[in-house]
Amino acid sequence: MGPKTALRFVYYLLKLPRHDLEVMARSIIALADRIKTCDVCYTYCETPTCDVCRDERRDATIICVVEEPRDISTIETTDSYHGRYHVLGGVLNPIDGMTPDVLRVRELIERVRADESIREVILGLSPTLQGESTMMYLSKQLAQFNRRVTRLARGLPIGASLEYADEITLGDALRGRRDA
Amino acid sequence: MGPKTALRFVYYLLKLPRHDLEVMARSIIALADRIKTCDVCYTYCETPTCDVCRDERRDATIICVVEEPRDISTIETTDSYHGRYHVLGGVLNPIDGMTPDVLRVRELIERVRADESIREVILGLSPTLQGESTMMYLSKQLAQFNRRVTRLARGLPIGASLEYADEITLGDALRGRRDA
Repeated sequence: MGPKTALRFVYYLLKLPRHDLEVMARSIIALADRIKTCDVCYTYCETPTCDVCRDERRDATIICVVEEPRDISTIETTDSYHGRYHVLGGVLNPIDGMTPDVLRVRELIERVRADESIREVILGLSPTLQGESTMMYLSKQLAQFNRRVTRLARGLPIGASLEYADEITLGDALRGRRDA
Repeated sequence: MGPKTALRFVYYLLKLPRHDLEVMARSIIALADRIKTCDVCYTYCETPTCDVCRDERRDATIICVVEEPRDISTIETTDSYHGRYHVLGGVLNPIDGMTPDVLRVRELIERVRADESIREVILGLSPTLQGESTMMYLSKQLAQFNRRVTRLARGLPIGASLEYADEITLGDALRGRRDA
């Protein structure tokens, strides 16, 4: 957010009655007091364990590793995934201080080691430079466990035109072709 | 191209010496005279059969169906495909008069029927609304031959962020996940 947008918000707040500002202030304090991270997957929640981790109908044999809690909401909208999650807390980027010990890599390794029922770990990170190197790193770390480690398919997004696709994506789409 | 760009081209041509204009005019006539379509795959070429169809090192057991000749150049840049092509000449769009008989559907069917060595047909059309319906149509038409019919993978393009992916593409990427 830039300084102009910030100033517009302040002017908006100045027009609100004092009562509304108090409600807002209390909500902001409540964020710090009430929102914790889940003991199992480290997403935000108000209970010790989050809704997904407590839901017995979810498939506990698959974990999808995501960068941030917001990615869980994104994946949930697809209605295509019914397993559990692990929030890494970022992607590797040593220049910005994002090293494996800052991320929840150790927690992931320990979770997979401790739970024999986990048979697949999906690396659900974005196919960016940092996302790719993080997935490569995690893949190596997880190789010791003899569980399936997968990644999201790379290919053409829906509505895309072949003409404007970059060659790496188009190459991925060709190699990853599926029965029609 | 809009009228302003067209006018800019005319002004550019007005500055050229007469000789250059003659060369250009001859090249434009040569386009009509010399550029034909390949007897096998229907791409543009100057010989009865195009370079790809004549190249013995290309895999003749796979055909990739594309919309237009320009898509062949796009796929060739990926360096991931070494089979042959079939130019459909468009996608189905009955409102605009693009019905199966306007496209080279019959030619494709006949080519697959006549050549027993073809073991896979890749439907390399864009994952747009028309592209998808055309692939569905072709897939049904080709089902009679008992050859493999595949389509390009749908998924996240390289560099994409999970946060901004639409749910259909993200769902495709999840279902199409691959070993990391």
